[in-house]
Amino acid sequence: MERIPILRMGTLLLVTIQVDMHDRLAMTLQEDLTDRIVKDRAKGVLIDISALDIVDSFIGRMISNTAAMAKILDAKTVVVGMQPAVAITLVELGLALEGVITALNVERGIAMLEQNA
Amino acid sequence: MERIPILRMGTLLLVTIQVDMHDRLAMTLQEDLTDRIVKDRAKGVLIDISALDIVDSFIGRMISNTAAMAKILDAKTVVVGMQPAVAITLVELGLALEGVITALNVERGIAMLEQNA
Repeated sequence: MERIPILRMGTLLLVTIQVDMHDRLAMTLQEDLTDRIVKDRAKGVLIDISALDIVDSFIGRMISNTAAMAKILDAKTVVVGMQPAVAITLVELGLALEGVITALNVERGIAMLEQNA
Repeated sequence: MERIPILRMGTLLLVTIQVDMHDRLAMTLQEDLTDRIVKDRAKGVLIDISALDIVDSFIGRMISNTAAMAKILDAKTVVVGMQPAVAITLVELGLALEGVITALNVERGIAMLEQNA
């Protein structure tokens, strides 16, 4: 289980992050995700982080980078399910999640991506 | 991170299993899932096991039990994303996944649940 599964729903891809990310796992996810965006011709990526109690600068940067990669491949990224405590920590630490759009939950994220499609 | 996140999509709930299940995590998942079926008035549950390389009798029974609980609450369960190796092992071990419907991937699982709704 060294891979985070990527689920396809129509033209969207859904990733649920529920394990502690380390360098290799993050790299694998980015490779898998960019591969899948191209292969599945995805127009949007949903990253669910509702299982994360803490988002540190490593995960923050990983999410930003993933969104930037997706953007180059013409797919929009929406981060969904952020816990209130995570939002507080991010602001307090000055981590801005550059270029990342957020939505309350998967449903709203899907609506957001479909609206912009 | 002692909880497996449950994502709502319309009247469906999606659970992605990507960590090794142990007793307490399985119990928590079953409690959370039954709670959410009632709270969100869900008609279907999708359990994605594409990240699992191995399904032993414990996980098999956990999935069967979860499906049975969901059924009592009037929600159908579809297990999606089973790896070929897992299917082979399940049959070889004589684990039948009683009462569990399977689908190739999330998309087909959603279609299956919507058809039966």
